[in-house]
Amino acid sequence: MAKAFPFTAIVGQDEMKTALLVAAVDPSIGGVLVFGDRGTGKSTAIRALAALMPKIPMVDGCPFNCDPDVKPAGLCARCEKGSDNLKSRASPIPVVDLPLGATEDRVIGALDLERALHDGEKAFEAGLLARAHRGFLYIDEVNLLEDHIVDSLLDVAASGENVVEREGLSVRHPARFVLVGSGNPEEGELRPQLLDRFGMSVEVKTPQDVASRVAIVKQRDAFERDPEGFTKQQQRKEGRVRRQLQKARESLDSVDVADEVLEAAATLCMSLGTDGLRGELTLVRTARAQAALAGRDVASLADMRALAPSVLRHRLRRDPLDESGSTARIDKALSALFD
Amino acid sequence: MAKAFPFTAIVGQDEMKTALLVAAVDPSIGGVLVFGDRGTGKSTAIRALAALMPKIPMVDGCPFNCDPDVKPAGLCARCEKGSDNLKSRASPIPVVDLPLGATEDRVIGALDLERALHDGEKAFEAGLLARAHRGFLYIDEVNLLEDHIVDSLLDVAASGENVVEREGLSVRHPARFVLVGSGNPEEGELRPQLLDRFGMSVEVKTPQDVASRVAIVKQRDAFERDPEGFTKQQQRKEGRVRRQLQKARESLDSVDVADEVLEAAATLCMSLGTDGLRGELTLVRTARAQAALAGRDVASLADMRALAPSVLRHRLRRDPLDESGSTARIDKALSALFD
Amino acid sequence: MAKAFPFTAIVGQDEMKTALLVAAVDPSIGGVLVFGDRGTGKSTAIRALAALMPKIPMVDGCPFNCDPDVKPAGLCARCEKGSDNLKSRASPIPVVDLPLGATEDRVIGALDLERALHDGEKAFEAGLLARAHRGFLYIDEVNLLEDHIVDSLLDVAASGENVVEREGLSVRHPARFVLVGSGNPEEGELRPQLLDRFGMSVEVKTPQDVASRVAIVKQRDAFERDPEGFTKQQQRKEGRVRRQLQKARESLDSVDVADEVLEAAATLCMSLGTDGLRGELTLVRTARAQAALAGRDVASLADMRALAPSVLRHRLRRDPLDESGSTARIDKALSALFD
Amino acid sequence: MAKAFPFTAIVGQDEMKTALLVAAVDPSIGGVLVFGDRGTGKSTAIRALAALMPKIPMVDGCPFNCDPDVKPAGLCARCEKGSDNLKSRASPIPVVDLPLGATEDRVIGALDLERALHDGEKAFEAGLLARAHRGFLYIDEVNLLEDHIVDSLLDVAASGENVVEREGLSVRHPARFVLVGSGNPEEGELRPQLLDRFGMSVEVKTPQDVASRVAIVKQRDAFERDPEGFTKQQQRKEGRVRRQLQKARESLDSVDVADEVLEAAATLCMSLGTDGLRGELTLVRTARAQAALAGRDVASLADMRALAPSVLRHRLRRDPLDESGSTARIDKALSALFD
Amino acid sequence: MAKAFPFTAIVGQDEMKTALLVAAVDPSIGGVLVFGDRGTGKSTAIRALAALMPKIPMVDGCPFNCDPDVKPAGLCARCEKGSDNLKSRASPIPVVDLPLGATEDRVIGALDLERALHDGEKAFEAGLLARAHRGFLYIDEVNLLEDHIVDSLLDVAASGENVVEREGLSVRHPARFVLVGSGNPEEGELRPQLLDRFGMSVEVKTPQDVASRVAIVKQRDAFERDPEGFTKQQQRKEGRVRRQLQKARESLDSVDVADEVLEAAATLCMSLGTDGLRGELTLVRTARAQAALAGRDVASLADMRALAPSVLRHRLRRDPLDESGSTARIDKALSALFD
Amino acid sequence: MAKAFPFTAIVGQDEMKTALLVAAVDPSIGGVLVFGDRGTGKSTAIRALAALMPKIPMVDGCPFNCDPDVKPAGLCARCEKGSDNLKSRASPIPVVDLPLGATEDRVIGALDLERALHDGEKAFEAGLLARAHRGFLYIDEVNLLEDHIVDSLLDVAASGENVVEREGLSVRHPARFVLVGSGNPEEGELRPQLLDRFGMSVEVKTPQDVASRVAIVKQRDAFERDPEGFTKQQQRKEGRVRRQLQKARESLDSVDVADEVLEAAATLCMSLGTDGLRGELTLVRTARAQAALAGRDVASLADMRALAPSVLRHRLRRDPLDESGSTARIDKALSALFD
Repeated sequence: MAKAFPFTAIVGQDEMKTALLVAAVDPSIGGVLVFGDRGTGKSTAIRALAALMPKIPMVDGCPFNCDPDVKPAGLCARCEKGSDNLKSRASPIPVVDLPLGATEDRVIGALDLERALHDGEKAFEAGLLARAHRGFLYIDEVNLLEDHIVDSLLDVAASGENVVEREGLSVRHPARFVLVGSGNPEEGELRPQLLDRFGMSVEVKTPQDVASRVAIVKQRDAFERDPEGFTKQQQRKEGRVRRQLQKARESLDSVDVADEVLEAAATLCMSLGTDGLRGELTLVRTARAQAALAGRDVASLADMRALAPSVLRHRLRRDPLDESGSTARIDKALSALFD
Repeated sequence: MAKAFPFTAIVGQDEMKTALLVAAVDPSIGGVLVFGDRGTGKSTAIRALAALMPKIPMVDGCPFNCDPDVKPAGLCARCEKGSDNLKSRASPIPVVDLPLGATEDRVIGALDLERALHDGEKAFEAGLLARAHRGFLYIDEVNLLEDHIVDSLLDVAASGENVVEREGLSVRHPARFVLVGSGNPEEGELRPQLLDRFGMSVEVKTPQDVASRVAIVKQRDAFERDPEGFTKQQQRKEGRVRRQLQKARESLDSVDVADEVLEAAATLCMSLGTDGLRGELTLVRTARAQAALAGRDVASLADMRALAPSVLRHRLRRDPLDESGSTARIDKALSALFD
Repeated sequence: MAKAFPFTAIVGQDEMKTALLVAAVDPSIGGVLVFGDRGTGKSTAIRALAALMPKIPMVDGCPFNCDPDVKPAGLCARCEKGSDNLKSRASPIPVVDLPLGATEDRVIGALDLERALHDGEKAFEAGLLARAHRGFLYIDEVNLLEDHIVDSLLDVAASGENVVEREGLSVRHPARFVLVGSGNPEEGELRPQLLDRFGMSVEVKTPQDVASRVAIVKQRDAFERDPEGFTKQQQRKEGRVRRQLQKARESLDSVDVADEVLEAAATLCMSLGTDGLRGELTLVRTARAQAALAGRDVASLADMRALAPSVLRHRLRRDPLDESGSTARIDKALSALFD
Repeated sequence: MAKAFPFTAIVGQDEMKTALLVAAVDPSIGGVLVFGDRGTGKSTAIRALAALMPKIPMVDGCPFNCDPDVKPAGLCARCEKGSDNLKSRASPIPVVDLPLGATEDRVIGALDLERALHDGEKAFEAGLLARAHRGFLYIDEVNLLEDHIVDSLLDVAASGENVVEREGLSVRHPARFVLVGSGNPEEGELRPQLLDRFGMSVEVKTPQDVASRVAIVKQRDAFERDPEGFTKQQQRKEGRVRRQLQKARESLDSVDVADEVLEAAATLCMSLGTDGLRGELTLVRTARAQAALAGRDVASLADMRALAPSVLRHRLRRDPLDESGSTARIDKALSALFD
Repeated sequence: MAKAFPFTAIVGQDEMKTALLVAAVDPSIGGVLVFGDRGTGKSTAIRALAALMPKIPMVDGCPFNCDPDVKPAGLCARCEKGSDNLKSRASPIPVVDLPLGATEDRVIGALDLERALHDGEKAFEAGLLARAHRGFLYIDEVNLLEDHIVDSLLDVAASGENVVEREGLSVRHPARFVLVGSGNPEEGELRPQLLDRFGMSVEVKTPQDVASRVAIVKQRDAFERDPEGFTKQQQRKEGRVRRQLQKARESLDSVDVADEVLEAAATLCMSLGTDGLRGELTLVRTARAQAALAGRDVASLADMRALAPSVLRHRLRRDPLDESGSTARIDKALSALFD
Repeated sequence: MAKAFPFTAIVGQDEMKTALLVAAVDPSIGGVLVFGDRGTGKSTAIRALAALMPKIPMVDGCPFNCDPDVKPAGLCARCEKGSDNLKSRASPIPVVDLPLGATEDRVIGALDLERALHDGEKAFEAGLLARAHRGFLYIDEVNLLEDHIVDSLLDVAASGENVVEREGLSVRHPARFVLVGSGNPEEGELRPQLLDRFGMSVEVKTPQDVASRVAIVKQRDAFERDPEGFTKQQQRKEGRVRRQLQKARESLDSVDVADEVLEAAATLCMSLGTDGLRGELTLVRTARAQAALAGRDVASLADMRALAPSVLRHRLRRDPLDESGSTARIDKALSALFD
């Protein structure tokens, strides 16, 4: 596989980098949607994050990426049966691309036709969702994804389970993943349902000063002319962030969120009029993950506030009386509440 | 399967909870349609109800969920033949999801191709409708369901029977189920025919006070971080409602409805101008189920009145002279008749 | 099969009931189209008529419902060959549902693939039209039927024969049936060609008085809670009408229609400007069937007049100068001619 | 097959009857298009003509209806090979229905899949065009025919040959037939190309006097109640017209058309501005056929004039300055030239 | 095959006849597009030209119409291998019809499924383009041709080669043909790309004098009543034109075009503003072919001028300032330059 | 294969010729998009460039065009395994046409059905992208390419790798190629994403002076009448450019780009407001390739400036305040910065 550009060598784009790390700490937050112009390095950043992730234990030979350290009830059918005796191996966190033209069979899995025809046996061929379990599912140009694939995706993202029933074959396996999407808002709107499913959204822009631009062009040119040398130089920084991520994932469950933070989250969402309660639930979780990344064991108002624009930006309805952008409206609400 | 959030831990949303319980007591009422914004817990409530339902006797090994205690005429062809000698087992009430992209074959059943090819024998592979018999058929985003699936569904819901004829195969089995749909009215209208088929409809909204919202977020966060512990805490409450439901289902046939209630139902429907007579028939039945839930053996005017908004809301035609909402129009009619 | 609600227990709806009986007496009249709101019992009435029909003799084992008492020329190819030696059995008059999503193969019949693959033999698998021969073909929501199915249907309804040629297989069998359709005029217009093919049309409405409505709701509720008991109570009335029908079918050929009736029919159709002559032909036939039902051997002007609204209502062109409804225009023409 | 209503028992409709007879005398005229309201007996007339046609000699066993009396060059490939030794039989003139939903394979013929699969041999299965050779091809509701079928039809109608090349199979056989179409102008326009291909067009209307209508209704009722008795009564008249037709077909080649008739035809077409020269060519041929039917051996101006409305009516372009109907414009032009 | 009407018996239509002959002399000119009303004899003329063409040498048994007298590099793969030893036969110049509904496989060729299934061997089945090589490809109603067929056609017409790659089969063969299209401009526009591919275009009209029309009708009637006799009468004239064509094809390469002609062509095209240089290239070639037909060995300005309307008519852009027709604009430009 | 017109014989069109050579020197620049009217020789130029390219070493027998001189990590799976022992051959640089109608299987490769059926073995059949590796992928009328093909293409062009997963087959091979597209802007817009993927764009026009036009017409006519003679005359010039290209490709890695050039590129892009940074990255690379072609080892501002219009023309957004064309806006910006 082609080398990925190192995450730590990305110039600027701090909001995006923070959101990606937070999403990597707590997959239940629901991933990140990265919007921006062409050529701003969206795909680069996401592929870079993948290369950075620590290894995780996996059941050897399980096509559904089962976690050997989990209770039988959380395993796939096969691993559940043999749960006393699962071989573990350390495996890179999976990062799976969902290409725009992928068929539904390819995404959710299908009958293995070859084995059916050859051995007269119905076997299931795991799809992309199985392969993304416990890792990342990346969709470039998510706004161009076909509707029926979006439907399948939303079902699975909501339930954490993939249920496939085809030609008398019935398979059910856990499928939890961090959804990462990128897109250009000028090229097609996202369905509100899909938007809502993303935990955070960030917008990236081309820098507007010569020095940054020259720096970026130099780095990309250097990387593309000698990917291996470039990567080696960045090794130490990459290791540092990788360890920070690992520690945050482990300590996440022990981070507390004060009632004050919950109330502030509710007040903020009500003042902005977001639909339902997914906004405040996500505010709470991102605050917790942010605290974990910082090595703290209590999430503060500041943690929540820091991520609030990313969490709420895509959840606002258009307000005909306030034509300012989503980010400005969130900032205004934050100031009104906290300043 | 992932744990369901406990029904009794749902904060607020009383109209929806009552409608779901009433529909569960008398399946002939025709189920519930739950409309509301994203993130208001529609799916959660419906999956919670499923976990609450008492067990029912089923014929062991029957793919059509036959009831061993019923007269032969109400059984599937196979059970009807062997009706002297059916083995019974207590089984959870089935709750079947009808996914948006399901094929017609998958919904109504189809020729079992594998057996056809392998054994040269025409066998029927039961579809989702067979699996939902005597239980619930749940359709999330019912307003996005494809028309031809809606057609099949309406045929079966109306006749209580599923008749499949494919490639010389002719199967007929009972298929009676409580239809539960959820949807977002902003994302597509329901065909009037489908609307009319639902016994009740309720609308759910996000609460607009900080305390409720914090309570809900806390509960969801607690549940998601430790589903098993949370469920255990709720066990006793769940048991109480489960027993109430079971008793109501058993006593339903012996609950009387006074003529006064029938007349009031007819008068109400005429004053609101609903199409046909399905409105008043459902008013009578929901009143009877409501009385059964309350442990009473006569349904009162109050029982009918309590459920009237849920029963009639989706049966009103738009009235160009009265732009107030359906609920307000029903309340006005109720006041005019009863106060 | 689920029990049908008894025909004679239907409250009101006299025009519909008369039209259905008349159509059952003389199948060449061309059936009935029942239009009306949802919930007015259209389907109930039609299924009730089916349960009422007397038995007829059929050739045992013939998939095309051949009549053993007919001349060889009117039989299917197989029965024609063995016409000296056909075994007869008394069989219920067939009532066949044509579901909206039915394929053309299913409707008109097709190559029996199983036998083709298995025995290497081309055999015909009879379709719904074959199964409806000499009985009723019922189409619920006929206005939603797909065009190519309508085409096949019209061909067969016009010629009384079904001709299928597929993959070198050539089958021709008689297919005469009473077409009964129901629909909601608000949900899609009927093609004029299909409209014209129906002998009569009736419109049903929800009654607008409390007493009738309570009576209907009571009966439906009683029937649904104990179908068998309810049916038993109605047995004698059902038997009476069944015998009336049988006698009318037998005496039909000997009923005379006076020239005066023919002239009145022509005058009426000309004054209303109906297309072609199918209107007056049907007026003559319904008058004859009505006389037969009444046990008379001459059809009178009164017989014709009684059915004229049902016969002509769907044959009027819209008249821009006369915005009154079809029924009113027919009544006006009848008065002008006869009063 | 169901009995056809006798041609000679048709009341009125003289223009249609003449056009059908003329088309039957000279197939190269290009058939007849019959337009009119529903219920005016269009299909009845066409099926009646078929029953009237004299028998013709055919090569026994030839699926392409070859004429044993023709030069080898006009035969199908198989008959051409064995042209010294063809067995002849007298056969009814074929009348083939082209149903609206027919596939292209069915119309033009196709690989005989059964023989291909069974015997491993490529054989051709003749289509409807082959079966209509030397006879009639009848299309009811020709304005609803699918475009690609119309294309195939026009190719063959223009060249008199059907050329099929499928899967390495190459078949070419003569296919000359009288195209007879019927339709309702209110239900879809005909492509000008298809219109132009018809030799004549006639419009039929419901009679507007009581006596005719009663007569027609009586006859149809009598026929439908006893088809065989009715047909027998008409036998002698049918025989007379059949012999007239036969004689006209035999004498056609010896009928002369005077130059005066040709010039009048050209002048007429120019004054009416018809496209191309097909109009005058057809005027000449219908005049010749009309003379043959009348037993004369020279076609006169009167012969041409009699058929001119039928020949030209469908060939006029809409004239924005002359809003009178096509027939009126033709009559005006005829008067201007000849009176 | 049905007899073609003789080319030399066509009355009038000189521009069309000249263009067809010029295109037949030099296939690289790019064929002729014939536009006009229905019934003006477009198809007749093109089929007539085919019957007129002299025979050419072909490699016996080559499905790609290879020319035995050409260098190996210009042959198909098979002929190239055996190029020392090719058997030649004189063969009519191929004239291939491209029917409107033809599939892409049929047009460009495809895997021979029969041989694949039978012999397990991948063989190529030549398509219509192969069969048209060195001859004519005729498309009636070219404006109705499907887009993807047009694409294939343009690729091959541009490169003179047909490259087919299907299921691992890779075939490449020369495919050069004279494209002849006919169409009715009222029934659909031609894609500019396809228009541009035609070397010349001509428009045909129905003559507007009685004498010509009577002459034409007489000739067509005479031909259709006795095709063989008629053809025999025309034999000598046909032979003369056939020899003229043959001589022109042989002498074409030795005809010179003066620089003066090239400059005039460029000046003319610039003044008319045609896209690209295909216009002047074609002017040069048609002038050369015209000279060859006339038996001259230098092409003059007059030769170019004579064909200029046919060459340029379909290459003009619409000029909003000059609403006169294309032909008038070309005539004006020619006058301005040469008179 | 048909002879290509020699690159060095193309009259004029210098910008296009330079862009093609620069793209050929550094494939990572991203190819050239050639826009222009029909008939301006776009395809000719591109095919000419292909004929000019020097040979490159390829692994003998590798269907993925592997480079034997590359590190194992850059090889296809098969070559990677046998990387110690690869046989090299000098091969023409591949130039692959992507026809408009190509299927996705054909483009990206697919399961080799024949081997699957025959040998029961899953093998991959390389697609057009594999065959274009290390060479050119040419798309004529790129604006008419189907969206799903564009998607596949963009994925591969971005990653330099083709990943195919079909029916349990998983193949990954390098696929880097110079994308060359041609199109007519009047016939369909390019998706911005696809536009952006091209390194350079040039526009070609028909010359507007008689001398050039006559020269071009003469050369094309001469070439088409004797391709081999014409090519021979041009041989020496072709060799000279071929050697220049080869040297530039070899020296490219050692050409330096001064910081001054990077800054100027950034300043230029910011002043023009291009999206992202791909504009300046491409400016840097084209300057380097241009220097390499000129035999210099440092890229200058002039190198960058020379190519800037080609690099930036298609990257500008429409500026509502500046209606001048893209090229004019770039020239203005260049003047403002450098003059």
